[in-house]
Amino acid sequence: MNMLLLTSKITDNAYNVRDRQLRHLLDVHKAELGDSVKVGHINGLMGTGTIVKLDNEQATLMLDLTQNPPPPLPLTLLLALPRPKMLRRTLQTIAAMGVKKLYLINSSRVEKSFWQSPFLTPDAIEEQLVLGLEQSRDTLLPEVHLRKLFKPFVEDELPSLIKGTSSLVAHPDTEENCPVNTFDKTTLAIGPEGGFIPYEIDKLVAIGFKAVHLGPRILRVENAVPSIISRLFPS
Amino acid sequence: MNMLLLTSKITDNAYNVRDRQLRHLLDVHKAELGDSVKVGHINGLMGTGTIVKLDNEQATLMLDLTQNPPPPLPLTLLLALPRPKMLRRTLQTIAAMGVKKLYLINSSRVEKSFWQSPFLTPDAIEEQLVLGLEQSRDTLLPEVHLRKLFKPFVEDELPSLIKGTSSLVAHPDTEENCPVNTFDKTTLAIGPEGGFIPYEIDKLVAIGFKAVHLGPRILRVENAVPSIISRLFPS
Repeated sequence: MNMLLLTSKITDNAYNVRDRQLRHLLDVHKAELGDSVKVGHINGLMGTGTIVKLDNEQATLMLDLTQNPPPPLPLTLLLALPRPKMLRRTLQTIAAMGVKKLYLINSSRVEKSFWQSPFLTPDAIEEQLVLGLEQSRDTLLPEVHLRKLFKPFVEDELPSLIKGTSSLVAHPDTEENCPVNTFDKTTLAIGPEGGFIPYEIDKLVAIGFKAVHLGPRILRVENAVPSIISRLFPS
Repeated sequence: MNMLLLTSKITDNAYNVRDRQLRHLLDVHKAELGDSVKVGHINGLMGTGTIVKLDNEQATLMLDLTQNPPPPLPLTLLLALPRPKMLRRTLQTIAAMGVKKLYLINSSRVEKSFWQSPFLTPDAIEEQLVLGLEQSRDTLLPEVHLRKLFKPFVEDELPSLIKGTSSLVAHPDTEENCPVNTFDKTTLAIGPEGGFIPYEIDKLVAIGFKAVHLGPRILRVENAVPSIISRLFPS
């Protein structure tokens, strides 16, 4: 964690830190009274918090928040729902990379059971996103949408979502290279392990997606996400 | 796994698969007699293997290997030794991304205990590299070198290692962008969680490294590695 992300309301420029974040302050930072730590307020400014009261139950921080969070990526990411074990890490990764809009979608190769994962509740999702933002020092919480049916999502909702964006689908079986350093608003679809099936690629291409590849190697979703994002957008 | 990597000698174009790889064939691929699967021979060619004998102990594959593995990245990666839990995943990642030369190095922020990890034995390292190659469909096993002392490595060994290469160190506190789509032979150093300390950056810069950043967000090593590699080299 490189910043404490404060997720509740701030009152009189003060904030009480408890539980996981308090443990982190005490056990990892070895924080003491008077220390300053990097903090940010969810969907707000970043800066420092000075510990003005400290016991085993809570730390009270006096806040000085003046800095804007890093600019969001101009990206909507569509990701075939990963297996639960991978899901949590992937949510941290997308938050840490600066993605602000994520659709977890279905695909023929997504196992039905993945949709039953307890890690898909709003609280469980937010927990992982917060960890990603704390890692990367950012405050803007990504929106996460779940779409359990591929066809109605692609036919009914996606055409208006991609309007005005460059729409790409990562796909090994194409000659087209992934664009580099674009400033375009982009919609990017990444398939499951084993890839989207041809029917799904065809449906995406039919509404305007372009299939692009990432090189001769097949990457797992956890490597594909940072790889593509890092090629697409200037750092 | 997208390919079986055969790590022993091939005799008369046949190969016997056992243990983990046999289980994968049976449990995940539901392989049957006569099926063909993608295979590659370690440090050699790729192609298909047809199952000509199959029982619960082993599968015998008749091989047809004609395809070259993907070209190696022109990269030597220096990575501050990650914590053991992260190390295994990182080894898979570097193998999957096409890195062929890795130095795991010390840094002030690497905990001494990390060097005691049982995952640093040659066999344990190879096991993770093989998994990465099987994921990405590649056969060239990366070389992995361990360097437990930062200063002698940087002073005595690194100057000749970086000769003729573009030498970069990932560092958040710099204005310099990471190059994109280079064809240069490159040496890239990535620090530990929390980054290299200023003394270490200075030592690297003194022998010719250039500090480059990857954007306003701080990435964990597992995301930094694919992000930087993917920016540096054309896909």
